[in-house]
Amino acid sequence: MVKLIQKEYSQFEETLYIAKLSSGLQLILLPKKGFRETVAMMSVGFGAMDTDFSYKGKLYHYPSGIAHFLEHKLFEAAQGEDVALQFSQLGADSNAYTSFDRTSYFFSTTGHVEKSLQLLQSFIVERHFTEQSIEREKGIIEQEIAMYQDDADDRLYQLLLAQLFPATPMAQDIAGSSDSIAAISYKDLQKNHDLFYTADNRKLVVVGDFSPKDLAKVIDDTEEMLTIPSTKKIEKIPIAYNPVIAKATVYQDIVSPKVAVGYRGLPLGENQDPLRTKLVLQLLLDMLLGWTSQSYQGFYGTGLIDDRFDIEVECYGNFLFVVITADTYEPIALATKLQQSINQIKDLPDVTEEHFQQVVYECYGAFLSEMDSPYDMAMQLTRFSHYLQIPDMLKNISLEDVLREGLSFFETADRAEIVMLPK
Amino acid sequence: MVKLIQKEYSQFEETLYIAKLSSGLQLILLPKKGFRETVAMMSVGFGAMDTDFSYKGKLYHYPSGIAHFLEHKLFEAAQGEDVALQFSQLGADSNAYTSFDRTSYFFSTTGHVEKSLQLLQSFIVERHFTEQSIEREKGIIEQEIAMYQDDADDRLYQLLLAQLFPATPMAQDIAGSSDSIAAISYKDLQKNHDLFYTADNRKLVVVGDFSPKDLAKVIDDTEEMLTIPSTKKIEKIPIAYNPVIAKATVYQDIVSPKVAVGYRGLPLGENQDPLRTKLVLQLLLDMLLGWTSQSYQGFYGTGLIDDRFDIEVECYGNFLFVVITADTYEPIALATKLQQSINQIKDLPDVTEEHFQQVVYECYGAFLSEMDSPYDMAMQLTRFSHYLQIPDMLKNISLEDVLREGLSFFETADRAEIVMLPK
Repeated sequence: MVKLIQKEYSQFEETLYIAKLSSGLQLILLPKKGFRETVAMMSVGFGAMDTDFSYKGKLYHYPSGIAHFLEHKLFEAAQGEDVALQFSQLGADSNAYTSFDRTSYFFSTTGHVEKSLQLLQSFIVERHFTEQSIEREKGIIEQEIAMYQDDADDRLYQLLLAQLFPATPMAQDIAGSSDSIAAISYKDLQKNHDLFYTADNRKLVVVGDFSPKDLAKVIDDTEEMLTIPSTKKIEKIPIAYNPVIAKATVYQDIVSPKVAVGYRGLPLGENQDPLRTKLVLQLLLDMLLGWTSQSYQGFYGTGLIDDRFDIEVECYGNFLFVVITADTYEPIALATKLQQSINQIKDLPDVTEEHFQQVVYECYGAFLSEMDSPYDMAMQLTRFSHYLQIPDMLKNISLEDVLREGLSFFETADRAEIVMLPK
Repeated sequence: MVKLIQKEYSQFEETLYIAKLSSGLQLILLPKKGFRETVAMMSVGFGAMDTDFSYKGKLYHYPSGIAHFLEHKLFEAAQGEDVALQFSQLGADSNAYTSFDRTSYFFSTTGHVEKSLQLLQSFIVERHFTEQSIEREKGIIEQEIAMYQDDADDRLYQLLLAQLFPATPMAQDIAGSSDSIAAISYKDLQKNHDLFYTADNRKLVVVGDFSPKDLAKVIDDTEEMLTIPSTKKIEKIPIAYNPVIAKATVYQDIVSPKVAVGYRGLPLGENQDPLRTKLVLQLLLDMLLGWTSQSYQGFYGTGLIDDRFDIEVECYGNFLFVVITADTYEPIALATKLQQSINQIKDLPDVTEEHFQQVVYECYGAFLSEMDSPYDMAMQLTRFSHYLQIPDMLKNISLEDVLREGLSFFETADRAEIVMLPK
């Protein structure tokens, strides 16, 4: 019997079921009455950042891109078959992605949920890759990396991250580089799989129309059948806070220039919640520079920016940063104006209780829309088990909190800027 | 009182409500119990193709991109304000897109549905653009066109369409060209707005959790208040079937070569349903070349294609075509192999009753997933009012039908091919 802890969110009539299975797997179930689609996401705590760590007193360093490489190779089934094809034969659509801190494998289906779950749980445990298939894969991944380089926006973002976090895994493409990929061996992949794809380094989120009790039993039964590597005590090496590279200019085959400005904050303390910090910074930036702000309307109205203007806030336990990107014919002027807005936060006409209520309302609306998407919810719950607390958090964040915490972020943050010009 | 016609789809527990309002507006409502997000899409029968037509015995020709230009300019509210901002102040996210045969304006919200609907209905009727703002917009649109040209996949697709439909509006980018945009005047936009944004050339689809009766009343009340241009009897000029341009090669700043192969079919007869034809061709191509086919697995396994391999079927009343695109290091070899598969349709090992059942099942699964997305459903219902009949259609399409109709399509289709190589 799986013991499910029930969390009621009566405010918007949802119930979350959480369990730690005896295998070590963390389980989160979100039943959605009337939905046809079921999305299941299995996430493993092994991401692009995890190339440096110590285990049993020994220091390890692996080439960048190894987590992403492993993601590719676990899709290889027996006899070189593709796991995605096996999902497809069950009527399920499958895929995976590697992020800074984890690798997530998922499927979406309207059919055989239980069989697809069995496949999801088992294929990341079983290894079928060979020395030969590893070498073949290098070409495929190199092409993928080159493709990201071709994409001006991807490249801009990646280069800015390298300026914000120089000489750390964050400075590398998640997929690695040609050189780092070439250096990865069959044994490296086996070793990392043994170390990270372990009993309690996994989290499974399922969103759809099902009975939580029945589904938890099915999942638990599959866990019993699998031979999962035992838990390893790994100590991760914190990211180095080297001096940022303040300015850079690059050339690319594009039409209109692009600019990206990044702010690297101090790492969060142990008692600080990354989700709450993310909300606070988002609310502040929406108020200052979002769609409804006078600044945005001014920039947009005079043609300084177009609707590709974007603000991204990333908060993890051990690092946080904000990235603002724009396509603009006046990259330098825009970067300066953005900095002016941030310097004058408290005195800006956009900072009013009324405008604050509006951005809070927008944020709540975006949350409610996300609730209708099984995929979005699975992805968010994979990162934040307490994601459904957002409405409560929003109620408890005041304009004063946002200003205080936001000002403290920007006062201590290091800033980097990159301009991309047409060749 | 609005008279709503109710269509039950008991097989998957959905009911559609359809009405023709006294204003002339076609209304389609799809209530989704338990959903937070409401999506409303107002579609006007004026698209990129509609540059040549006759009205009251007079022949008209307008520059390409005029429908898209009008889409941009209707977002201009009084005093140069942005309508998108007005939606945003209601907590709604808005946008629009122009396709071959229509322009669609939509919003998504979890809040003030009725007020947002009023705004959606009224802003496409009211015109606030000026001679000056038209000239300013030309720069913005030119930049948008240049951006599409930068995107290798967009450009490949556009060039292939120009090969399939030479010297027709289909050969132009939906947004037009620098020259055609420059030629559009304030009066042209006014005239086209008067001719096409008329009483019964509009269709409104709303998907979300609401009472159909109450919502229909709100929509009808708004219609009463608006002064909508009267219905115009416009005769559209059929697309010319000029000889296709069979082969082309272009150079772009890319890493791996790309190839696209297109098939232009004969226009459908009056009694042929574009939705059904689309399903038939999709099923055939999924069976022949889709993910689960032996051909795909063979191409993929030997590295001839990667997972960007794509098949698109477009069926409209007056034209239909199929486009297959791939990133591959052997564009010529792949194009040949694709043609071989199509030549041997009947004898391929992929063409079995069992495999056919699998692709039907996949197609049904994709439909059910779409049903969970208010945006997808609004978009599909905008084009096909009978979109919910897909499950019934799938039941009634046999493998024999697919082979017979599919073979007839490919036997009479004209073929064009384009290869894009790295500079």
